[in-house]
Amino acid sequence: MFLTEKGISLPSEELDLMGGENRRPPYTDKNPGGQMPALELEDGTVIAETVAIFEYLEEKNPSPALVGSNAEERAETRMWQRRIELGITENLYNGFRYSQGIEIFKDRMRCLPEAADGLKAKAQDGLEWLDKLLEGHDFVVGDRFTMVDIILFCATDFIAGVGQPLNPEHKNITAWKERIAARPSATSSLHPGAAEVGMQG
Amino acid sequence: MFLTEKGISLPSEELDLMGGENRRPPYTDKNPGGQMPALELEDGTVIAETVAIFEYLEEKNPSPALVGSNAEERAETRMWQRRIELGITENLYNGFRYSQGIEIFKDRMRCLPEAADGLKAKAQDGLEWLDKLLEGHDFVVGDRFTMVDIILFCATDFIAGVGQPLNPEHKNITAWKERIAARPSATSSLHPGAAEVGMQG
Repeated sequence: MFLTEKGISLPSEELDLMGGENRRPPYTDKNPGGQMPALELEDGTVIAETVAIFEYLEEKNPSPALVGSNAEERAETRMWQRRIELGITENLYNGFRYSQGIEIFKDRMRCLPEAADGLKAKAQDGLEWLDKLLEGHDFVVGDRFTMVDIILFCATDFIAGVGQPLNPEHKNITAWKERIAARPSATSSLHPGAAEVGMQG
Repeated sequence: MFLTEKGISLPSEELDLMGGENRRPPYTDKNPGGQMPALELEDGTVIAETVAIFEYLEEKNPSPALVGSNAEERAETRMWQRRIELGITENLYNGFRYSQGIEIFKDRMRCLPEAADGLKAKAQDGLEWLDKLLEGHDFVVGDRFTMVDIILFCATDFIAGVGQPLNPEHKNITAWKERIAARPSATSSLHPGAAEVGMQG
């Protein structure tokens, strides 16, 4: 979705995520974190972690700005990115990994099934908080569409299908989600992208 | 510690963290996240979230580089920052908040005491993983001292005093911690900075 919004096209290589190809060499020699996706540069340097990849691609392709077009905009985007990830999306994903997703994840990381319900509740707390702050705004960072919308959209879209739907009482988030879903980048790239981000294998 | 390394001096205002001054207006009107620290710009814009502040200060004061001096270095630093935070320091902090720190945090956020032991164990898994990767390197991002060292140092230093000491068998991390502790910035700014980051109130 980020690439589509940027108009960037990159050669790609698919790995068998469900088969755990990302959790063993040769992939882990390049990315010892073992997560997907990763970006390999021409000199062989490997950049993992989706947000680090976003920032790198933005530096190389500044327009349209999805982080920001000046230091103040970028700071505001990065502040929101952390609020959304630490308060909402990490809790959505871990809530999933430790319950509905546990059969996939139990051999890949230490899973905390005892934490699943609480993490899901924390994610809802975060969404409740965000819903109020979204009042009168089109996007998470006010009037600018940014990587934060992509992060939250992919997370909520993926997770809605695996047991954590949005609360329809969160009217601002519901309207925001419809707004993002109507973008061509969401239609064209949604399903593989969301699944990949959601799983991170 | 970041400011000291950069040689930046900023006017500052102290809030009564233990009294929850950061969790109510007028602070939350400026930073609805309610966490500390926050950086107020001259036009009144408020940037919260420590890492967003680091990135902003680096853009305005590029040298010495604590994120990186080119896009590739910055990408590598940001990748490591996420690995360290999501895999280690967030788990250290939340493990603390939900157990030793619960009296302070129970009225400020949803606490998950049932998750505390598991989160602490996940932090140790992350440190175990990092210890191997640190072999032969002076800093988390290879040969460069970066904001990632500051993030991990402040977290491990704070948390060692509240129930989660480093494992002495992690020899590379132990040596790394001594290396960072010997920096003038650690000696001069350690305790208030570490406590503030650790608490985030």
